[in-house]
Amino acid sequence: MTHRPGHLILNAFLMSTGHHEASWRLPASPAGAESLSIAHFQQLARIAEAGTLDSVFFADSPQLWGDIGRRPAGTLDPIVVLTALAAVTERIGLIGTASTTYNSPYNLARRFASIDHVSGGRAGWNVVTTAGPAAARNFGLDEQPLHATRYERAAEFLDVAFGLWDSWEEDAVIGDKASGVWGDNDKVHAIDHVGTHFSVAGPLTTHRTPQGRPVIVQAGSSEDGKELAARYAEAVFTAHQTFEDTHAFYLDLKNRAVTHGRDPEGIKILPGIVPVIGSTEAEAQALERELDDLIVPRYAVAQLARTLRVSPDDLPLDGHLPADLPDEDEIEGAKSRYTLIVQLARRENLTVRELVGRLGGGRGHRTFTGTPEQVADTIQAWYDDGAADGFNIMAPVLPSGLETFVDHVVPILRARGLFRTAYEGTTLREHYGLDVPANRWTAARTPAATPAITQAATPATSPTASLATTGA
Amino acid sequence: MTHRPGHLILNAFLMSTGHHEASWRLPASPAGAESLSIAHFQQLARIAEAGTLDSVFFADSPQLWGDIGRRPAGTLDPIVVLTALAAVTERIGLIGTASTTYNSPYNLARRFASIDHVSGGRAGWNVVTTAGPAAARNFGLDEQPLHATRYERAAEFLDVAFGLWDSWEEDAVIGDKASGVWGDNDKVHAIDHVGTHFSVAGPLTTHRTPQGRPVIVQAGSSEDGKELAARYAEAVFTAHQTFEDTHAFYLDLKNRAVTHGRDPEGIKILPGIVPVIGSTEAEAQALERELDDLIVPRYAVAQLARTLRVSPDDLPLDGHLPADLPDEDEIEGAKSRYTLIVQLARRENLTVRELVGRLGGGRGHRTFTGTPEQVADTIQAWYDDGAADGFNIMAPVLPSGLETFVDHVVPILRARGLFRTAYEGTTLREHYGLDVPANRWTAARTPAATPAITQAATPATSPTASLATTGA
Repeated sequence: MTHRPGHLILNAFLMSTGHHEASWRLPASPAGAESLSIAHFQQLARIAEAGTLDSVFFADSPQLWGDIGRRPAGTLDPIVVLTALAAVTERIGLIGTASTTYNSPYNLARRFASIDHVSGGRAGWNVVTTAGPAAARNFGLDEQPLHATRYERAAEFLDVAFGLWDSWEEDAVIGDKASGVWGDNDKVHAIDHVGTHFSVAGPLTTHRTPQGRPVIVQAGSSEDGKELAARYAEAVFTAHQTFEDTHAFYLDLKNRAVTHGRDPEGIKILPGIVPVIGSTEAEAQALERELDDLIVPRYAVAQLARTLRVSPDDLPLDGHLPADLPDEDEIEGAKSRYTLIVQLARRENLTVRELVGRLGGGRGHRTFTGTPEQVADTIQAWYDDGAADGFNIMAPVLPSGLETFVDHVVPILRARGLFRTAYEGTTLREHYGLDVPANRWTAARTPAATPAITQAATPATSPTASLATTGA
Repeated sequence: MTHRPGHLILNAFLMSTGHHEASWRLPASPAGAESLSIAHFQQLARIAEAGTLDSVFFADSPQLWGDIGRRPAGTLDPIVVLTALAAVTERIGLIGTASTTYNSPYNLARRFASIDHVSGGRAGWNVVTTAGPAAARNFGLDEQPLHATRYERAAEFLDVAFGLWDSWEEDAVIGDKASGVWGDNDKVHAIDHVGTHFSVAGPLTTHRTPQGRPVIVQAGSSEDGKELAARYAEAVFTAHQTFEDTHAFYLDLKNRAVTHGRDPEGIKILPGIVPVIGSTEAEAQALERELDDLIVPRYAVAQLARTLRVSPDDLPLDGHLPADLPDEDEIEGAKSRYTLIVQLARRENLTVRELVGRLGGGRGHRTFTGTPEQVADTIQAWYDDGAADGFNIMAPVLPSGLETFVDHVVPILRARGLFRTAYEGTTLREHYGLDVPANRWTAARTPAATPAITQAATPATSPTASLATTGA
């Protein structure tokens, strides 16, 4: 592989007291609602920025997730969270999750444009289609729409959003006090989209944003999810347990992107890793054991039963998974998570108790337990061997696990020339090595306009710069 | 009237370079997109907070408003703006506008709850039904829904939102590390709303907010608008030209609130005022003239024609309004604005040129031109004589007009004992003198629960406090 030196991508996936479900029970963790407070997340973002990480990320669904007895539950709106983090950070990218199934494209495109403005070009949107009936019932539906319908809607949603983000050309604002002309109406465009799921006139309410549009992230690994990512995503978060699976996924996604006429460098693959770090292997293993011992089996089995669509009674702690589980095809939503869990249990012949221990750390993401040197080694190996453009860092305990990663793993990656020592750019696109997309209207006016795939490799400012004399 | 001393309410209505449409053309004003930047609004909020004002406020519609040639146009999402202001202020209330016609109640209730959390209890929501076909066409509709339908939907929307904001009782979060129980499932409630416009299961994603729910603001002055305000609003922004009209509106709204079983002190009436301030009367008049001379008549007449549903050709600059304008009943949306403009032109026999000059300052709100002493006098007179609980301050030029108000009018109001000298509370409810609503579930468990109207006057903490021993 030909990764550019120093361009390993590191994203910090943030979640209350950490990704291990029992992390909140550790003595040092905030116990109550403080673990969901904006002050807590602002502290985490500052730690990540001190480590020059590329971005922070939040998962989301418009529903109360799971059993509040089990662990810190309750999520602030991700738009509010990202904006509050933008206010206390300078450089780090800010990626939030929002549903294409339960939002309208006009409002959501507007919100991400607004975050891109207030953050100075640091916004990213993890596009999800939101599985499950619980969310559906908050939006007037008895059941979730079908998997294929949700993905079809997501694609049209993105087409509309891309149109809205292009609706103001870069030089639409003039501000000529002498003549009394503030803006150039000829450089603000309706989109007049009429499609299967949406009719949207446009233009957007706000002038073009620093990044042109937010970085598009995707995390579904079903067939539909991979196709959506191949067409639109610029970064993909993915959960795999083995190098082989991750490597195959990496090649598959890059090849699919090429099939859609895209540059494979324009889609970054970031597998998740839950690093359980100790200054010795024994210390790391002791931390992992301490966490697993704090899992309350009753809650964990109930969660597993929901994911597998079986009764908790079918999952005796010291038994194995039922033999007659449904095929992935029969599962509506979270398909890839379902398959990953079933395969993990079967491959390693795990009991239910062992399985919930394994899932308690990273909910299907790969847990890696070891010293900072060993964590750096596995990150480097997967990166060098072409299974990853970077990693989605899922600290099992927050803030301590992120502090340990920043203080002890990041310096090793820097010393090896894999990771930046200071931010070079100011936007998320610059951190990830992604180009600013050309504005379709500006491009159409440019005599030298070239096909889309080549345009994507053009420096962001050139279409505007070449038009500077024709503006206003 | 029996206004409590020191409890005049002052809200700063913020808008780009100011409420006068030509304000952006003044030499000191930012000319381009900076006037819409978050840094600009953060500066304005800090000025207002330095003056211990109660709140700042933003209007909004999910569409690009008007002609971008005419004046700074383009709005950031109000949720993003309020959150960004929360990060740089400590005490001032933060009121944003959001549409019940073009949002879903689950998502919007969640966003305002999130702002209330991150601001420490400073959120207010100006509830609007969004008139006009331009917004409708961004949401799959050819025309706006009928006026009555929009208000019916708004009422149901608020019922759902109130239910969601009550869905977590105050003491639902336990955080008991020893037993491994984080939250009490019995204190988190589905709402299972099934109505005409919405079906929403709940519960909300987040625990109860500092204010219980955001302060509900309303600004419609049509019959439907006044009824919605009388049932739900805790503050009402209103546009009138004369004391008599304002006083009549004030009494009407308070009486309607009583009819709905509410305490009239629980609904605050805040008329708009555009204060054009100079250290002498002549200086104030010179500023007003300078601004009016900068209006571009072509843009202003086009806007007036849209509001009146006539052709710009029907509005010769030195002629009068056409005699055969439609009745208010035939107008769908912005009914009260329409009537106000027509009445103003007819009452004062204004030419079109004179009318657009008058509207250029405050779009139908009352412009008052004079010295700080004179501005303080009119504020005091309307407050003392029972036409207002406070004012919606619409500086014609920003930031200078707000700075002048804070530096020169606020000290006079303080010296007269009408306005606070320092913040006493930390929440918007405390600033406005509004109680925290009782949680319906907690109230239902309380043996001493009393009817709704009396509960509203109960100190905010008592229902919770009385339950403290039964919790967890």
